Amino acid sequence: MTTFDEPATYTPAQARAAFRTGTAHPTTGWANGFTQTNLIAVPEDWAYDVLLFCTRNPQACPLLDVTDPGDPATRLAEGADLRTDLPRYRIWQNGVLAGEVSDATGLWRSDMVAFSIGCSFTFETALAAEGIPLRHVDQGRNVAMYVTNRPCEPAGRLFGPLVVSMRQIPADRVADAVRITRAMPAVHGAPVHIGDPRALGIHDLSRPDFGDPVDAEPGDVPVFWACGVTPQAALMASRPPFAITHAPGYMFITDRDDSEYRVG
Amino acid sequence: MTTFDEPATYTPAQARAAFRTGTAHPTTGWANGFTQTNLIAVPEDWAYDVLLFCTRNPQACPLLDVTDPGDPATRLAEGADLRTDLPRYRIWQNGVLAGEVSDATGLWRSDMVAFSIGCSFTFETALAAEGIPLRHVDQGRNVAMYVTNRPCEPAGRLFGPLVVSMRQIPADRVADAVRITRAMPAVHGAPVHIGDPRALGIHDLSRPDFGDPVDAEPGDVPVFWACGVTPQAALMASRPPFAITHAPGYMFITDRDDSEYRVG
Repeated sequence: MTTFDEPATYTPAQARAAFRTGTAHPTTGWANGFTQTNLIAVPEDWAYDVLLFCTRNPQACPLLDVTDPGDPATRLAEGADLRTDLPRYRIWQNGVLAGEVSDATGLWRSDMVAFSIGCSFTFETALAAEGIPLRHVDQGRNVAMYVTNRPCEPAGRLFGPLVVSMRQIPADRVADAVRITRAMPAVHGAPVHIGDPRALGIHDLSRPDFGDPVDAEPGDVPVFWACGVTPQAALMASRPPFAITHAPGYMFITDRDDSEYRVG
Repeated sequence: MTTFDEPATYTPAQARAAFRTGTAHPTTGWANGFTQTNLIAVPEDWAYDVLLFCTRNPQACPLLDVTDPGDPATRLAEGADLRTDLPRYRIWQNGVLAGEVSDATGLWRSDMVAFSIGCSFTFETALAAEGIPLRHVDQGRNVAMYVTNRPCEPAGRLFGPLVVSMRQIPADRVADAVRITRAMPAVHGAPVHIGDPRALGIHDLSRPDFGDPVDAEPGDVPVFWACGVTPQAALMASRPPFAITHAPGYMFITDRDDSEYRVG
């Protein structure tokens, strides 16, 4: 197995090439400074519902690119192939996770439409640049994600709950974290909730629905952002016949600089 | 005919009621502080193309709401009816302007999907609040809009040129105008061009394609923003069988406060 000593310094193209040749590794900390995206791909028959769902829930599903039916290329990365260039995919049948693969080529139907959705990893670069610690990175874990009790705005046949990512932030840096992320609406923007997880219907932070549990340091406050895994929860709730997504934490790495998605 | 001494102080509901009962008046300066939107409504068969066109051209077509097929209500205004509550509509057949009406109820097909798109009037409030003069308002005219030589990103069957609105801004306030509008990406954001109109393929500022010509004051610089009339230019280029839009300058007035669309 290949080792990855300095994946942070990989170019996006190098990272995608590694994943294309079979490497399956969470992408947090890879190709630092370049925007990563969530993927949801559905047959053309469901594309309007997904597009409208994203439009109506822009904080959870900020759309950075939509492909034409059957086209695995994306405007976000020169020469990339969305069927192969993510490290891990989830295959969904009738809303049930049917399996995970590292290459989706054989499952990519001829009319698949792929949606690339902004990812909170993008604003992590901005948080770190201002000295806000990222506990999950320090602990070598995937970010913790939770299904909440808040319904998304439905769209056609698609409905489901809001999913959030959580970061433990030192209390005296929470205001900074709000300021920084609020300026990045294309990658989820400001937190949807700060503090008591029960307000979101989350009863045990140590048991995330996606990703890994992350330990708090003394004085940390849990801060919750809308998460691009939300469409996967909608798949589970709405049960379309077929879909392909990224596996949580195993994102697509684009050629876009994170700074492109900062406002003001 | 009713007179409108203080339309700036109308509530959005009062303005909509006036338009619903037949008043046809440009909406600039009406119900100050509340967001106005561009309208494009198409039969369901074309809805995906319009939705994707807006997604791919977010600076020109920032989507604030999309209705379900046939539903004339909008999330942007309690009790409003999109078929009647705009002061003036344009009816399009095969890409040709077939007429203008003040009530679109009789033409609103049972499967129409309506798209509400952010409008630069929203950031005018923010510009005025910082003392930047609005020449078209001072001159009692509609803002000037121009078809450019820049193609939009096409989407399905829909394609066309970028349309811009132009404001003459005192040279020493242009940087402020950029800063203010850049913080409002949901209502077109930063200018797409500053200065020489020929760079956009505009050869005569005195002959706008939509709206009114607006006189410059000495020392003014023309500043161009992406404009929500862009979908109308796409209708003219792409020729879908049927569509209803607002008439340029005759917008829908929502219940949303302009400040909701400011970032940071």
